[in-house]
Amino acid sequence: MARWEPNARLRLVRAALELCTDQGYEATTVAEIADRAGLTKTTFFRHFPDKREVLFAGQDEHSRILAEAIAAAPAEATPIETVAAAVVALAVSFTDENRAFGRMLIALIAANDDLKERAAYKHASLAQATAEALEARKVPAATAGLAAELGVRAFHEAFAQWIEPGTERSLVTLTNASLDRLRTAATMLDASHAG
Amino acid sequence: MARWEPNARLRLVRAALELCTDQGYEATTVAEIADRAGLTKTTFFRHFPDKREVLFAGQDEHSRILAEAIAAAPAEATPIETVAAAVVALAVSFTDENRAFGRMLIALIAANDDLKERAAYKHASLAQATAEALEARKVPAATAGLAAELGVRAFHEAFAQWIEPGTERSLVTLTNASLDRLRTAATMLDASHAG
Repeated sequence: MARWEPNARLRLVRAALELCTDQGYEATTVAEIADRAGLTKTTFFRHFPDKREVLFAGQDEHSRILAEAIAAAPAEATPIETVAAAVVALAVSFTDENRAFGRMLIALIAANDDLKERAAYKHASLAQATAEALEARKVPAATAGLAAELGVRAFHEAFAQWIEPGTERSLVTLTNASLDRLRTAATMLDASHAG
Repeated sequence: MARWEPNARLRLVRAALELCTDQGYEATTVAEIADRAGLTKTTFFRHFPDKREVLFAGQDEHSRILAEAIAAAPAEATPIETVAAAVVALAVSFTDENRAFGRMLIALIAANDDLKERAAYKHASLAQATAEALEARKVPAATAGLAAELGVRAFHEAFAQWIEPGTERSLVTLTNASLDRLRTAATMLDASHAG
């Protein structure tokens, strides 16, 4: 019978990030992660299929937040406004611990091709979940896909700035600035520019 | 000393796709692929690091075609027009064999999470190469990123239609139609829609 382990997922994520940061992703084993978290390997595998997935533990939760915020947006919101509300809701959900985790995770991804691929897939999965939530509001598929991509891109840009040492602006402020920048950029797609 | 093997890369790609289609991606080994291609494992590893990369052999070549076409576009072209010229150039480069390969590859990707991640990474890599080529033309980074994403997305949509059985339109025709659709979609990002 499974014992109830308080915060097992969070403890495993924290242990995995710390161990991988200290000794490298390749060198870290599931047994070490479970041990550092004060849990068993069996408990680890109840939560995650392997050591890589523990690093991307947030994906389903982030998709859920985006989809729920999109469903809750005012009916008259444009596709971009709807997506903006969703990524701001996602930004609001991030804590100082997410910031510390993010710093470690981004450094790990930069050093490992397998994690780069997994990160690209996470980006695509979040955009897909966002696009589907927009389509459920009758936004045409092509517009939904582009709006979703723009939103996820804005969030990732803001997140990358937020985890930089010395950044004082909040993730919400950075996300809004990034959304404004990309919203303007979208209006320039078919405009001539001064070379 | 390495013997010169005519068309070794192409033979390895063909062998890999055929074997993986017949017996599954997981079950297929590098030794079998090399053998089917009439080559040695040593030759395989001169061209590809593993059996997965042989399936994505086109990535570098596609990035090169996109970047060169962007560099060659007229100075007055808008970002979207520049990207459109590039993905049309990419479409022109595809042969009937690419179509047969694409059919097999898309089916393999649909059945394997590791290949899904690799495909997401290829999409991101092509978009990155495209964005960098646009930035070299002084397109601002945010606009370049969105235009690149739109172009790569249009190409992939067109490609997915092209490999459907019974499709009679050419890849170029489908790519232009997809570009038009996404170009229109981009103008709707901030527009209210009838619900």
